[in-house]
Amino acid sequence: MTSTRFTGAAFTDDREREALAKIARARATALRAPHFRDEFITMAHGAGGKATASLVGGLIAPAFASAALAALDDAALVDVGDVRLAITTDSFVVKPLRFPGGSIGDLAVNGTVNDLAMVGARPLALTLSFVLEEGVASDVLRAEVDAIAGAARVAGVEIVAGDTKVVERGHADGMYVCTTGIGRWDSRAQLSPTGLRPGDRVLVSGSIGEHGMAIMLARREFELDSEIVSDTRSLWPAADALLELGAELHCMRDATRGGVATVLNELAVASSVTVVVDEARVPIQPAVVGACELLGIDPMYVANEGKFVAVVAPQAADRAIDLLRGITGCESAAIIGDVTADPTGMVLVNTSFGGRRVMDLLVGDPLPRIC
Amino acid sequence: MTSTRFTGAAFTDDREREALAKIARARATALRAPHFRDEFITMAHGAGGKATASLVGGLIAPAFASAALAALDDAALVDVGDVRLAITTDSFVVKPLRFPGGSIGDLAVNGTVNDLAMVGARPLALTLSFVLEEGVASDVLRAEVDAIAGAARVAGVEIVAGDTKVVERGHADGMYVCTTGIGRWDSRAQLSPTGLRPGDRVLVSGSIGEHGMAIMLARREFELDSEIVSDTRSLWPAADALLELGAELHCMRDATRGGVATVLNELAVASSVTVVVDEARVPIQPAVVGACELLGIDPMYVANEGKFVAVVAPQAADRAIDLLRGITGCESAAIIGDVTADPTGMVLVNTSFGGRRVMDLLVGDPLPRIC
Repeated sequence: MTSTRFTGAAFTDDREREALAKIARARATALRAPHFRDEFITMAHGAGGKATASLVGGLIAPAFASAALAALDDAALVDVGDVRLAITTDSFVVKPLRFPGGSIGDLAVNGTVNDLAMVGARPLALTLSFVLEEGVASDVLRAEVDAIAGAARVAGVEIVAGDTKVVERGHADGMYVCTTGIGRWDSRAQLSPTGLRPGDRVLVSGSIGEHGMAIMLARREFELDSEIVSDTRSLWPAADALLELGAELHCMRDATRGGVATVLNELAVASSVTVVVDEARVPIQPAVVGACELLGIDPMYVANEGKFVAVVAPQAADRAIDLLRGITGCESAAIIGDVTADPTGMVLVNTSFGGRRVMDLLVGDPLPRIC
Repeated sequence: MTSTRFTGAAFTDDREREALAKIARARATALRAPHFRDEFITMAHGAGGKATASLVGGLIAPAFASAALAALDDAALVDVGDVRLAITTDSFVVKPLRFPGGSIGDLAVNGTVNDLAMVGARPLALTLSFVLEEGVASDVLRAEVDAIAGAARVAGVEIVAGDTKVVERGHADGMYVCTTGIGRWDSRAQLSPTGLRPGDRVLVSGSIGEHGMAIMLARREFELDSEIVSDTRSLWPAADALLELGAELHCMRDATRGGVATVLNELAVASSVTVVVDEARVPIQPAVVGACELLGIDPMYVANEGKFVAVVAPQAADRAIDLLRGITGCESAAIIGDVTADPTGMVLVNTSFGGRRVMDLLVGDPLPRIC
């Protein structure tokens, strides 16, 4: 099976095409102008999928007449004087606080740094705000402070401001951490979630699903021994490398909550295109495949904390892969699919068994509190 | 009783002077190079007093080799290109979420905007991160989103980026909110917590203690009916007015957790001076005095969310008061004390009854989760 099969329009059956187009129109309407009708907040609203999109797009964002926020990108671009800044914020509520490959402190730095990197901004400074639980051991806090300091050094960012609050026993799980990142936009970056064009190639920067599965296994709710390690790391070196492609790099997005599937759906809707993924080409470690099969979870929906999706012009795809494979953590970067024109706003998967299916946004929350 | 009584050195008794100097040296050592030796985090670590100072100064800040953070100012100043930015962050965990005069949404905007204003930076943009509790009513969230949008409009800031996480029932009290603020430093501002000089006058921008007492009474733990309303508001208009004083304005600091007493202690230590407060001149609403007396709380330690301390050169004090009284919310601005040289790092209060006492940092947490 080669990738060429998925380039351009592959819909020979008119009826299938018509049915998909109908679904696509309904989806696009729902995602672009979402209504929020739920009476109560549920865990699904935090999962990064459909419910999150309706909460953010239907309740939160409309209250703020903000062009930067309306873009719903990983980070906002804000001009101050002659400087274009990127600004992003994230709260971290991962459970457990420490897991193979990292901890909440690593995530708090890398997750925020990566949102800056994805809009083409060099991370400069972070703020750090703790909500601590009364009774948490000082050594637990000290370990996270050290993890944050270490990850910040590696990522080349300075912690410039902080805050600490304490809530009563039982009202936070050890700690919640909120980081906000400030970066300086790199003028080589011509990136936009609306920038996907038919013919573009879709890349992932490495093997997927490790972070989410590492967290699931660390909770020990399942009788499963495995050596899956979180992929948490700063993506700025990889993003910096890809920015060499200039205008041929159309979009980057890190595949965190909701996984690669969610990112591709968001981009397909934003750009009014369809993304066709060749399942067999998606790099996944055998241990992750095994754990996902046992738990009945599709790895395309599992969170990553050190992997991203990039969409590039067709002529730049091979160069992009070469650039990525030279960066630590991106050795298994791969072209996984293509952008087509029709229908709009869908993600289709050509499965390893030769079938084709729609890959929708995540519904519900099979993997709560993974970041 | 006039303020002149407190100008300059008022220590005629050599023994008293010697004893105070000894206490002052020990305090300064403890506050400048604090040790953190507690085994567990307690509510006191979130109260803004001594325990918070030891946690931040002894455990958190030393891990980050950051000049901006080491300053421990309300907001960090960071140069990006030719632009000097101010950056600050705060988590809000106030209980209850709504109270007379405001709500967690108002605090989340005003508290962060005010930290920018206090370093002389015009607030430009805010980020907004929610940790929501599973099961919270959507209308409760909607009310806070609306409060945030309203307060942001009044303060003239744009919400540019956001994040939403959900934790299980019982693991957050409805919601916690983290806001980070970006401002542009105003070049008229020559402010520093180390900028207090003997002879300077100490001002408060209005009557104190309203926010903390409004929260305490809203909890209905006490049988006390009162009409105390939180003073939450943006302080940028007042700060902007005072910046007209240029280099004669030495320092501003909003008197939030730990109240005016904590701010004065921090400034006295940072500048190696003593602040002498004339208790009778501190503006306090009668209802706040009454509630504080009934609950046995010193209003100087009660949090404000719309009042600040300013320290100005002696010749600028009257002009500062005139400027402040022209700003809504600052009508009762007053000179409350003076800066003296000796002993260093102390705050002394001349009481309304003619006595004198040391006003130390807050110990413990009589008013938990007021912001």
